[in-house]
Amino acid sequence: MTRLWNDPADFADEMIDGFVAANGRYVRRVSGGVARATATPEGQVAFVIGGGSGHYPAFGGLVGPGLAHGAAMGNLFASPSTQQVLSVARAAENGGGVLLSYGNYAGDVLNFDAAQEQLRAAGIPCETVTVTDDVASADKSEIHKRRGIAGDLTVFRTAGAAAERGADLEEVTRLARRANDRTRSFGVAFSGCSLPGAEEPLFEVAPGHMALGLGIHGEPGLGDTEIPTADGLAELLVTRLLEEVPGDVAEVRGARVVPVLNGLGSLKYEEMFVVYRRIARLLDEAGIVAVDPHVGEYCTSFDMAGTSLTLLWLDDELEELWETGVDTPAYRRGSVDTSHLVRVETSDEESEDAIGDADDSSREVARTIAAAFDLWRATIDENVDELGRLDAIAGDGDHGIGMQRGIHAAQAAARDAAERGAGAATTLARAADAWSDRAGGTSGAIWGAILDTIAGHLGDEGVPSPDAIAAGLEAAKTRVAGFGAVVGDKTLVDALNPLAETFAARAADGAGIADAWREAADAATAAAAATADLLPQMGRARAHHEKALGIPDPGAHSLALLAQALLQLTQ
Amino acid sequence: MTRLWNDPADFADEMIDGFVAANGRYVRRVSGGVARATATPEGQVAFVIGGGSGHYPAFGGLVGPGLAHGAAMGNLFASPSTQQVLSVARAAENGGGVLLSYGNYAGDVLNFDAAQEQLRAAGIPCETVTVTDDVASADKSEIHKRRGIAGDLTVFRTAGAAAERGADLEEVTRLARRANDRTRSFGVAFSGCSLPGAEEPLFEVAPGHMALGLGIHGEPGLGDTEIPTADGLAELLVTRLLEEVPGDVAEVRGARVVPVLNGLGSLKYEEMFVVYRRIARLLDEAGIVAVDPHVGEYCTSFDMAGTSLTLLWLDDELEELWETGVDTPAYRRGSVDTSHLVRVETSDEESEDAIGDADDSSREVARTIAAAFDLWRATIDENVDELGRLDAIAGDGDHGIGMQRGIHAAQAAARDAAERGAGAATTLARAADAWSDRAGGTSGAIWGAILDTIAGHLGDEGVPSPDAIAAGLEAAKTRVAGFGAVVGDKTLVDALNPLAETFAARAADGAGIADAWREAADAATAAAAATADLLPQMGRARAHHEKALGIPDPGAHSLALLAQALLQLTQ
Repeated sequence: MTRLWNDPADFADEMIDGFVAANGRYVRRVSGGVARATATPEGQVAFVIGGGSGHYPAFGGLVGPGLAHGAAMGNLFASPSTQQVLSVARAAENGGGVLLSYGNYAGDVLNFDAAQEQLRAAGIPCETVTVTDDVASADKSEIHKRRGIAGDLTVFRTAGAAAERGADLEEVTRLARRANDRTRSFGVAFSGCSLPGAEEPLFEVAPGHMALGLGIHGEPGLGDTEIPTADGLAELLVTRLLEEVPGDVAEVRGARVVPVLNGLGSLKYEEMFVVYRRIARLLDEAGIVAVDPHVGEYCTSFDMAGTSLTLLWLDDELEELWETGVDTPAYRRGSVDTSHLVRVETSDEESEDAIGDADDSSREVARTIAAAFDLWRATIDENVDELGRLDAIAGDGDHGIGMQRGIHAAQAAARDAAERGAGAATTLARAADAWSDRAGGTSGAIWGAILDTIAGHLGDEGVPSPDAIAAGLEAAKTRVAGFGAVVGDKTLVDALNPLAETFAARAADGAGIADAWREAADAATAAAAATADLLPQMGRARAHHEKALGIPDPGAHSLALLAQALLQLTQ
Repeated sequence: MTRLWNDPADFADEMIDGFVAANGRYVRRVSGGVARATATPEGQVAFVIGGGSGHYPAFGGLVGPGLAHGAAMGNLFASPSTQQVLSVARAAENGGGVLLSYGNYAGDVLNFDAAQEQLRAAGIPCETVTVTDDVASADKSEIHKRRGIAGDLTVFRTAGAAAERGADLEEVTRLARRANDRTRSFGVAFSGCSLPGAEEPLFEVAPGHMALGLGIHGEPGLGDTEIPTADGLAELLVTRLLEEVPGDVAEVRGARVVPVLNGLGSLKYEEMFVVYRRIARLLDEAGIVAVDPHVGEYCTSFDMAGTSLTLLWLDDELEELWETGVDTPAYRRGSVDTSHLVRVETSDEESEDAIGDADDSSREVARTIAAAFDLWRATIDENVDELGRLDAIAGDGDHGIGMQRGIHAAQAAARDAAERGAGAATTLARAADAWSDRAGGTSGAIWGAILDTIAGHLGDEGVPSPDAIAAGLEAAKTRVAGFGAVVGDKTLVDALNPLAETFAARAADGAGIADAWREAADAATAAAAATADLLPQMGRARAHHEKALGIPDPGAHSLALLAQALLQLTQ
């Protein structure tokens, strides 16, 4: 149970503030998360990790010499936005390029990939290693679909050590991949977790039972069983992982592994030690040498009770890296010479970008766009509970809150830009950035992409034609399709595609914007209604389970609501 | 909730095994707890801490360079026995004397004091510093009665740093006292905790409420209140501690403090960071400089949800010591040069003590003593639930289990000694040692003292006279009185005193042992019965609250049961 918060909506932000206040010797606050308090030595690969909040010490607690250079810290259990990742990477980068690494979840993939693209576009070399250690989350034949859990630590530590020792981006990436290839985890959970302010736990496990392989956000596992003895649990964990020895480990007997027994939040250290006692014996009996055993909390899941065992199967190269000293807020090993590091002076940065030129008619359109966001904000505020309810049928119930967070930020940004004389394209692009930055997660990234793509077709001069808008919608449709969802997946795509297609058809017939939009909005609404009927059939808690998009959510309803709301402007 | 164990009776032992298995680079298992894996440098003060288990990282997690040299680890929430403390101190000591430090609880005081006495008797200089930081546990005017909670950390770290820097015993002791004098804590709890295997939590807090100043074993606090916001809690904690600024802090504005926001087990780091955010601002507003803030778990209470704020008010001397590097399993700060340290080779030590000489008649008495322990063991096994039930009325309900643990160990030791040809005194003394060693806590110490004292009057030659036994009982009565309880406190003293007095009176009248014992046993039984009627009036959960003895428990009943059981030998 979570008990302490102020406004739950501010929890993640305030948590980061408090974390930085307590750990100023290690980290500084940057937009989107934290970076080391000391500058990245010139030419060193900047190793940037990240993910949703609620997993402390992942991810901010692992920033410091020998480990990460920065952590993008998203909202609770929600991916950081593309802008957050980008901003942290820029704060950490110092001529050696950037390695991004994170657990393999849909929203994270979306946003880290987008950030990688933007860094590369800006001429900064960037690579990505996703962590896929959870053997319960997909079959051996589909390792790339597996989720990342406490194996984060072994991959991160390997990459951080390689960067610390001066390896270049290609080499750091290779070593991090190698660590991921040789890391396997299996976990169990005894209880769910509750987010700050939530009345109900996000999910539950029957009393006296444990869920095998349950994901750290409640993603489905392999079923329930009665809680065994501590020794019985140790046997279960070791057995599972010995069935999953990485292919390139030549011989189990004589192998050297780093065991990590990770607690999810509410499991006591004492209980973990009792379990580890038996794990140590089982490894020994199998002829496996345990190197630098870890028993503790490395990747938690709020107040969830549960534990996972991770094995990193060492080779000489990985074992040598493992000796590198680490000094971060939550994780310290060996000794670290910090005498050569230079503290970064923090300032009240974030100078405001100047607004580019625009003509009067585009400024008039920009004011209409701002008015549209006013309407949208009111619409989402009215419907936030209903959207949450719909989302809870098949997902984690946070769709309404996520939309609200995004639309509030977007509305403020659009108002601000329009009042400062921005044109239509700039105003909509600013709103898009604000949305994805504040909302985070998958839906934030998608809405940001949609609006940003449309903005690219509006220009900052003149009034956009129906054809330009049609082209923008079509491009947005294509961009969202690139994320992987297709019509019928019960996502926003189900409504976006008919909207774009209907608008384009009417525009091609010579209809004005208002008429074309009315028909397009109706098409979206009809499609969303059809989606709603299917939602209950999708089963619940798949939200974090799917790697790519294709996660059922009420995105189609949100889009239809916004499309209908816009009609008020034409009346 | 605690979920993972094998046999709950083995939990503490197995936990230590697992802890050592995971942390072999830091610690080695010694009888009674753990010591550093490396030898104490010659002439360095050996700093030994300890207490009951269930408070990880206190106490074993804090052993390593820059902090403790060893930790005596008692059973769950039970003081280590005198022998445990002694054994750890002997393993750690290397010519510089011993400083013992622990939280101020009755059982700990008893056992650490006894260990200190024995160390001194063996020519090893020894000092003690009890930690008394919990402002909620007694009034300002009685600081010495206060309990020790998370302030352990600041006192321990100061003492460990001073020892590391080569200060002598007097100086290390002075500095540790100074740190204790300048350390204040205040805590709140949101839930109770459950011991492994227990059906019910040890105590509870009403849902939505928090208990102010509740002790870490559930000792009574200052009452309940509704859970405030995170900011509200920060304000409460800071306000309480600013009302308790140590007398020798000249000026609050400009003062430098180390803040420690400690989690009790089930509170999430994220929640603590949100609270710390406001604490940092409040300290800043009060003109207080926060030095090296700590937010984390330093002294937990099983799976209890709660938190405490500790402030160590620095002076120049303490702040300079605070810079010392520390490297322990659970706590690391700065960097530590370990190159000069020498690993201790662990062996399967514990060579058996030889049994001294005895004559045949004393060996015959020894066999009778062993038979008495057989009877006593059966008696306690039969009554264990009832003793637990009686204890739960006014205490923590573990009296039966503690007695059982003690009597099983004592019976085995007595059997072993008698079979190996020991005399009466040696057999009873061995049983006494085994009892207090295995039972731990207050009652273990007292029973060990009683039997050991009587043993001193039996000799290993000839058959003891009724007068010798009377003298032994009288001496035991006097020794127990030295612990602080008097007749009427509803403790074992209520029965021990009439037993000793009745036996002495009958022996003086010329009665034989059997007759004198029968009357003595009846007197003890009558006294115990009177005690039982009063137990329900004593209120509950005082068990850990009282500094000295005088804690109501069913000790009188246990003693009466054993006294009656002995009569079977004379029939």
